[in-house]
Amino acid sequence: MNEERLVTQITPKSEDFSRWYVDLIRRAELADYAPMKGMMVIRPYGYAIWENIQRLLDRRIKASGHVNAYFPVFIPESFLRKEMEHLKGFAPEVAWVTHGGDDELEERLAVRPTSEAIIGHMYSKWIQSWRDLPVLINQWANVVRWEKVTRPFLRTTEFLWQEGHTAHETYEEAQEETLRILQMYREFVETELAIPVIYGRKTDREKFAGAEATYAIEALMSDGKALQMGTSHNLGQHFARVFDIKFEDRNQKLQYVWQTSWGVSTRMIGALVMSHGDDSGLVFPPQVAPIQVIIVPISIGNWKESVLPVARKLKDALQQAGCRIHLDDRAEYTPGWKFSEWEMRGVPLRLEIGPRDVKNNQVIAVRRDNKEKIALDMNGIEGRVEEMLATIQKSLFDRALAFQKENTREASNYEEFKKTIEEKRGFIRALWCGREACEAKIKEETMATIRVIPLDQEKDLAGRCVCCGQEASTLAYFARAY
Amino acid sequence: MNEERLVTQITPKSEDFSRWYVDLIRRAELADYAPMKGMMVIRPYGYAIWENIQRLLDRRIKASGHVNAYFPVFIPESFLRKEMEHLKGFAPEVAWVTHGGDDELEERLAVRPTSEAIIGHMYSKWIQSWRDLPVLINQWANVVRWEKVTRPFLRTTEFLWQEGHTAHETYEEAQEETLRILQMYREFVETELAIPVIYGRKTDREKFAGAEATYAIEALMSDGKALQMGTSHNLGQHFARVFDIKFEDRNQKLQYVWQTSWGVSTRMIGALVMSHGDDSGLVFPPQVAPIQVIIVPISIGNWKESVLPVARKLKDALQQAGCRIHLDDRAEYTPGWKFSEWEMRGVPLRLEIGPRDVKNNQVIAVRRDNKEKIALDMNGIEGRVEEMLATIQKSLFDRALAFQKENTREASNYEEFKKTIEEKRGFIRALWCGREACEAKIKEETMATIRVIPLDQEKDLAGRCVCCGQEASTLAYFARAY
Repeated sequence: MNEERLVTQITPKSEDFSRWYVDLIRRAELADYAPMKGMMVIRPYGYAIWENIQRLLDRRIKASGHVNAYFPVFIPESFLRKEMEHLKGFAPEVAWVTHGGDDELEERLAVRPTSEAIIGHMYSKWIQSWRDLPVLINQWANVVRWEKVTRPFLRTTEFLWQEGHTAHETYEEAQEETLRILQMYREFVETELAIPVIYGRKTDREKFAGAEATYAIEALMSDGKALQMGTSHNLGQHFARVFDIKFEDRNQKLQYVWQTSWGVSTRMIGALVMSHGDDSGLVFPPQVAPIQVIIVPISIGNWKESVLPVARKLKDALQQAGCRIHLDDRAEYTPGWKFSEWEMRGVPLRLEIGPRDVKNNQVIAVRRDNKEKIALDMNGIEGRVEEMLATIQKSLFDRALAFQKENTREASNYEEFKKTIEEKRGFIRALWCGREACEAKIKEETMATIRVIPLDQEKDLAGRCVCCGQEASTLAYFARAY
Repeated sequence: MNEERLVTQITPKSEDFSRWYVDLIRRAELADYAPMKGMMVIRPYGYAIWENIQRLLDRRIKASGHVNAYFPVFIPESFLRKEMEHLKGFAPEVAWVTHGGDDELEERLAVRPTSEAIIGHMYSKWIQSWRDLPVLINQWANVVRWEKVTRPFLRTTEFLWQEGHTAHETYEEAQEETLRILQMYREFVETELAIPVIYGRKTDREKFAGAEATYAIEALMSDGKALQMGTSHNLGQHFARVFDIKFEDRNQKLQYVWQTSWGVSTRMIGALVMSHGDDSGLVFPPQVAPIQVIIVPISIGNWKESVLPVARKLKDALQQAGCRIHLDDRAEYTPGWKFSEWEMRGVPLRLEIGPRDVKNNQVIAVRRDNKEKIALDMNGIEGRVEEMLATIQKSLFDRALAFQKENTREASNYEEFKKTIEEKRGFIRALWCGREACEAKIKEETMATIRVIPLDQEKDLAGRCVCCGQEASTLAYFARAY
């Protein structure tokens, strides 16, 4: 192995973003292709990110009063059929189980594409009275959607996610929950993944099958395309009517419950790669990085006797302080090779330690995000490393935010809109008449879709639809998206 | 609601153990039946136990050098067919996906009953050299086995588990790993679940399809039947040959790797119910209890003003100290009803607080395991509660161990064996000739199977097979089992 091998295995980001993405994911061992079309294996280095995401998000889900549960992976076909709108949305994507052992099943079972139907059925048994409400349940699970075009983490036949499913006494409570979760997702993604998002409502065309309204957070990847990072749905009483989820209200009257559902998935790992990565490889924010600090001993002279024991002590001290740290003490690789390797793997901070550093009671710290080098005194190094990790986390967010702002443009007419999308990508803030015809025309002609309609519209909003020139009813964010 | 309702919903344990088990699981809201045959929903109160099990076991899995990953839920039929012995073991239990959307698949996909086949395939791509070994990967996942007779947690069509899959350079290393995991499981189950186990090797008849040797931990439920709690398999080079997992060894020669696999599942929750539960309901060991301490305010007089604020402060203080605690402040239920309700739900420690206790700066603590009552001074209560929880954890283990010892008997001839199994159940330690004919005969005539062959056989072991009377080759533990 040498540095050349490393370079030749990854297409430069500037040359071909798509190939860079896939090369990097495989070379860094985040994931690998499974032998079944459209499926992937999440390898330990990638799964460690998912574990960090789970831990940090699950804490927020629980802090807001939700509890976890587990519902079956199979859903009878008749349950999906009860809800035709929902089924139509998912039918082309459902994997069907038809046999159990040698026996053909009387009724086909869907491998869950999402769990509204089975959870709705169970809620109809569990909910009797207003005293049983709200029900605030979340599930961490695998789901399957038979996709034609797939890409690791972004769109795969099977993926991992969490799906929240809540039931409430009133529409207002359900709407409040829907928006509370939207804000929870926004705060989580910006704080932990260091990815700034825009958020708002989806158009009817883009909303979830069966929802009254869908809200989403959307981020801009570094190639200028948008990525939906999470959705929160106000389901109204739609599923409650279909699955007969009724409760006796405070006036002893039977009412249908009001529901929400919401989810984020392993797609977030793809977003991390595409938001922060560069030509040297991955760049992970410290909060979710599988390894936060890599120690590379400079292997010259009698390093095994002089340097290695000090490096080991340093590793133990930082580990003790709660740091996710690794010491690369392999003798068969050069320090230079290790520098490139761990840069490629996106470790936020590298600590180099050689014989001279040992003498000077210091290490050389190198930031992954801007490659800045500084010497750190060994005394009190735990605090300094913690500070540097916090600085890197903030810098990554600031950089991504600056990129997002630079790449959010206005367009006042259709020619400008088309030119901007074609030449610059990014988000376009523009006025829209609210008609699906314009939305469809824009998508067909520019491949851009309405990502979200912002929640807080400027009060003095007035003007003309960017597409048809008729009076506009709303402001919208457009982009080409994954 | 009243206490009568509570009592009438659960069949007494002494009357019908099986119905008691199922009634209790549903009434305590650990799980509910799903509308699909053989499937269940794990409700929040039950899932919280699984989360505790995951957290405590995952810590041990990682501390022993393993990392987590995620492999696809679908396995192509040809992969299972490559390994006929393995397929024969699982074929009758496999759920088959035949359609993706409207299209029939060219090849059927199995919903994973276990993941040796797909993981073996991936390992053949990942492992090249002895430097890549050992590979120590674990997966937390759902699996599906089409079962004819099911029972919540013990045997369901879908269940949750962890499955470890490791690859090693030598047979010795694989064997060492197999036994290390067996001991890890034993220590985990005894320490955290407070369930004593016996452990050892399975007979060829009872071993995992495709394994060289299967080792298991087995516990005795309180009805005298045994339950397999976890298994660890030495797979030899069996799957390596089938899936061509080769590495260049230290002498530059190509060799097949040596593998292990091992798992425990949500079945453990069933074991908790059947090991510790009594006629009043569930009894959970504090280490895995969803709620460790329940505070019940005595709702008399102006309790909302006098007692409730003190109860709230107590709750906050204990929560701060790391205790999983709940304050039942519902006004619509009596203290007596709440006592029974939380006893039924297995909360290890109850703290009662009334106006007089407030005056005396104390609470009344009631242990779930032996119903012992003592007054605790409010000063330093965090430490006292922690001590009591540790005492309860230990007492539950000691009680279960005493039960196991009382119900482990010897049998020197077949008449004695049959009489003991029929009248007393429990484990029987007996000599065996090692022939499958005797093993089969015993099973047919007594419904008892060999649970394990202990690892450390007494050196001076000599005698005759309990079944045929011929010379014995080994000591074995027999029992009727779930």
